[in-house]
Amino acid sequence: MENSSLRHIADSLYSFALSINEVEIRLITKKDDDIVKVELMYNEKYKFHKFVNFLEMKKVASDDSKDYYVIRLKLTDKRLAYVFKITLKDGSIKYFSEFGVSDSYDIKQGQFNFFQVSYINKNDLIKVSPVLANRRFYQIFVDRFNKEDNLNPRINIRWGEDITSSSIAGGTLKGILDKLDYIESLNVNALYLTPICEAETNHKYDTIDYFKVASDFGSDIDLKNLVDEVHKRKMIILLDGVYNHVSTHFFAFEDVKKYGKKSKYYDWFYIDGDEVDMKKGNYESFGTAKFLPRLNLNNLEVQDYLIEAAKHYVINFNIDGYRLDVSDEIPHSFWIRLRNELNKINANIVLLGENWHDAHAFLNDGFEFDSIMNYAFTRDVLDYVAYERIDAIKFKNRLVSNYFRYKTPINYNLLNLLSSHDIPRFYSECKEDIDKLFIGYALLYTYIGVPCLYYGDEIGLTGLADPNNRKCFDWDESQWNFDILKMIKALAKIHEEQNINSLGISVDCDKNLFILKRFDEEKEIKLIINMSKDVSAYQIDDEKILLSHNYKEDKLLAKSFVLTLNKLK
Amino acid sequence: MENSSLRHIADSLYSFALSINEVEIRLITKKDDDIVKVELMYNEKYKFHKFVNFLEMKKVASDDSKDYYVIRLKLTDKRLAYVFKITLKDGSIKYFSEFGVSDSYDIKQGQFNFFQVSYINKNDLIKVSPVLANRRFYQIFVDRFNKEDNLNPRINIRWGEDITSSSIAGGTLKGILDKLDYIESLNVNALYLTPICEAETNHKYDTIDYFKVASDFGSDIDLKNLVDEVHKRKMIILLDGVYNHVSTHFFAFEDVKKYGKKSKYYDWFYIDGDEVDMKKGNYESFGTAKFLPRLNLNNLEVQDYLIEAAKHYVINFNIDGYRLDVSDEIPHSFWIRLRNELNKINANIVLLGENWHDAHAFLNDGFEFDSIMNYAFTRDVLDYVAYERIDAIKFKNRLVSNYFRYKTPINYNLLNLLSSHDIPRFYSECKEDIDKLFIGYALLYTYIGVPCLYYGDEIGLTGLADPNNRKCFDWDESQWNFDILKMIKALAKIHEEQNINSLGISVDCDKNLFILKRFDEEKEIKLIINMSKDVSAYQIDDEKILLSHNYKEDKLLAKSFVLTLNKLK
Repeated sequence: MENSSLRHIADSLYSFALSINEVEIRLITKKDDDIVKVELMYNEKYKFHKFVNFLEMKKVASDDSKDYYVIRLKLTDKRLAYVFKITLKDGSIKYFSEFGVSDSYDIKQGQFNFFQVSYINKNDLIKVSPVLANRRFYQIFVDRFNKEDNLNPRINIRWGEDITSSSIAGGTLKGILDKLDYIESLNVNALYLTPICEAETNHKYDTIDYFKVASDFGSDIDLKNLVDEVHKRKMIILLDGVYNHVSTHFFAFEDVKKYGKKSKYYDWFYIDGDEVDMKKGNYESFGTAKFLPRLNLNNLEVQDYLIEAAKHYVINFNIDGYRLDVSDEIPHSFWIRLRNELNKINANIVLLGENWHDAHAFLNDGFEFDSIMNYAFTRDVLDYVAYERIDAIKFKNRLVSNYFRYKTPINYNLLNLLSSHDIPRFYSECKEDIDKLFIGYALLYTYIGVPCLYYGDEIGLTGLADPNNRKCFDWDESQWNFDILKMIKALAKIHEEQNINSLGISVDCDKNLFILKRFDEEKEIKLIINMSKDVSAYQIDDEKILLSHNYKEDKLLAKSFVLTLNKLK
Repeated sequence: MENSSLRHIADSLYSFALSINEVEIRLITKKDDDIVKVELMYNEKYKFHKFVNFLEMKKVASDDSKDYYVIRLKLTDKRLAYVFKITLKDGSIKYFSEFGVSDSYDIKQGQFNFFQVSYINKNDLIKVSPVLANRRFYQIFVDRFNKEDNLNPRINIRWGEDITSSSIAGGTLKGILDKLDYIESLNVNALYLTPICEAETNHKYDTIDYFKVASDFGSDIDLKNLVDEVHKRKMIILLDGVYNHVSTHFFAFEDVKKYGKKSKYYDWFYIDGDEVDMKKGNYESFGTAKFLPRLNLNNLEVQDYLIEAAKHYVINFNIDGYRLDVSDEIPHSFWIRLRNELNKINANIVLLGENWHDAHAFLNDGFEFDSIMNYAFTRDVLDYVAYERIDAIKFKNRLVSNYFRYKTPINYNLLNLLSSHDIPRFYSECKEDIDKLFIGYALLYTYIGVPCLYYGDEIGLTGLADPNNRKCFDWDESQWNFDILKMIKALAKIHEEQNINSLGISVDCDKNLFILKRFDEEKEIKLIINMSKDVSAYQIDDEKILLSHNYKEDKLLAKSFVLTLNKLK
């Protein structure tokens, strides 16, 4: 056995409570190591030194180098002691405890060295947010979704015209309200809007006034009407919380530009020198964009100000939460405070980070975010489906590795997406290959997590990098791709009717096929994908075919999928 | 290369900021793998896609199965992107990124898949508490340290008489005050007292009144005088924060005993049923001790109450912090709140958990504790020195594994101990073998962390399990073991004069010798231990011998140590 590969730490993503009396325990080993059996040797903490119970752990998944053993255990006491007992092919036994690997384990000496669930506290439980259950999101880039009768003199292009990074097309909040019937027809039941606070640009990531709805987009009343109507339809709505940086015209930055070090807002920013030098850009900013000076969130005054801004839309507009811009550059201590404050108003507030990388530090303790934009999933689907850079096995391995970054309940909350305002549209990444598009969306609507559709993807809108991924929605139905619309609606309908994201998950490969299963005691839903050019025989027995593409007479043609339902009860 | 052994995660104990412009990055590999070079391939995040720099990482330590590579990097920007470049013995190159191991790495594609320091926020930095720097603690079990003129009628034994678990010997706070000269003579500059709040037992872990000094121990004035005198002497003092459970005579529990479910304190406890049944003990308690009912710390009212109790001694008595009893069974969310509230009063408050097991979840984010009682160290020294269960190599390996549980700054804060009120005295564990005792204490005063001496260890007090590890201090000097006293004083003096815990650390073995080095640019302090029966030649060249035991003419005899100083500048 490869001892150096064994991974387990108590009170971590390897060992966590699912409820006040159930824990999930994970053990990682080297892939295909000479292990024949892994058992959990356990008892209530204060009985462990007298006798122990054994339960076999199941190998539930593998990636390219590791095997993942998992067990869920119902507890009779909130305190548990445990050690892993590993039987090797040669018949020998190894014990893995907090002291590492040993040939024997004396339970009477077990005290310092067993692993433990010290005590399950209700307040520390990670929960699947009830608000995110069975949600399907729709992301709207507000300036480009629907214009209605907009006479805003700042509009500088005709709707649908080619856009540049400075185009203002005229989309509004009322425009969104007017299209809620359309949005609902997509089986969407959650909205996420790009920023709506007063700002200069079309994207509004350069906040000028946190407490004012952008005049380009409408008024407080328009926002109130939209949120109310959304809630009437039992949908939820997230706004974009942009706290990392502001516009150079934000009042505090204006003050610092004027008074330099004498300004009482000087410490709201990171300025190198006594005065702001706009030409040199002698201040920290988002990325390399000097028009977006970075706020000093290590200053408690700034934290207080932004918390008030965040509370404003929760209290006065009853929004359901925030997508949080550039969330990984902001102090953890701010997120803990923000969550605490917003929870006092709404215990089910949704906080969703824009974390492109492994976000364990923002998610696994449950004190910061419920979810993140799952760009790791995006990348895996791009590599497997759009770019065909990896095969089914590598794709499966990547999904498994990413899954085990997080505690299980968190995986149910992650916002899966294929397109957004920050990446090229998936259809364009697929070079408008509709077979690929269908496979990508079949994955989006069946994988663990909350699917998010980017406005316009459903009608075949195209566009690679910014600004072309932010084109105006085309309301001329003659321009729509109804094949795509039909497919996405059908997938979303299945997601809704089967309540897919309430189910368990497994991923596997069979030759060149990728196989995703979602299941509970009553049913199993299976997605089988063939991304290769070879035709694969795949027989459907008792299962009902829910949806398929390029699947004919028990054969998966090139670039095909079939989605089936098997009732177990 | 064994891919499954590679460990690195961004924003974790594998990658953390040491200051606003310095990070420490750790990579774990299989021990003695076919690796010839590990390089960090890095640049500022927004330049990484254009070009990268390389820096070789040093293998700084090994345990029984893993090698630890570490690098410290000064940053030019607070955002860093990096990937590990690993050169193997066969000349091939592997890249380890957030996507795992690959044969090539295209920096132009680097965006989703590099590791990153997203942004260093000052508020999230882990600091070596300035209050704990160069501290040597003395733990006092109050009832047994010094009695003074105590006419308390609850005293039920003569001082020094054999004790039982119900003995009340009469030690007081004024008794401690009277002995501060003695305590200072031990080169101690920090006190940690077992609980001092009103309670029934001698140990006072059964709190009856959180806001009252135990009448057995004295009054508010006695506590104030003690804290003031301690501070006058530039020492600090920690009290024991007992928040997990209370006495059955605690007012809230009394109320629930009386009124059952109708009591407004019913939800302050975990009661199985509508009424408390004292015979059945139908409520949760500490361990199996029904006289200690567990408080429901998931109830915010209970949290508020205990936070007020904790604040009381910080505000009104100016204590420096708390040792926190049964800290691993209390919700993380409470500790985060407590720290926040106490920091508002004293930014340098010390919070030290009683965590016997891996406490990464309480320490590594910096939002809960500064330190824990380092029982893992105790166990390592017991196994190596007292029980001779492990050899120098295994001892070194265990120290290394434990060190890498925590971010580096935290290791400097851990409270190292050999004896306490909860374990047998080290001298007794050594079967009163003074050679072993000396080696144990040489380790205590030179290893990374804050050494803590348990009252009486310095005069050779003995005692195995509770209650005998809580004997009365013997003030009759004719009973003292002056060899022990001299040795402990000398070690503490060296710890103070050399400011040992400000230095870097490495551990190694040379045949059967264990070698600990503490160093900076100016000096190197070396502890060489021979626990075996074989005599080992060990030549001291230019180094000055600070202290030694059983070391003669360049020879380490059986059970010996030598502590040397080498000035490098």
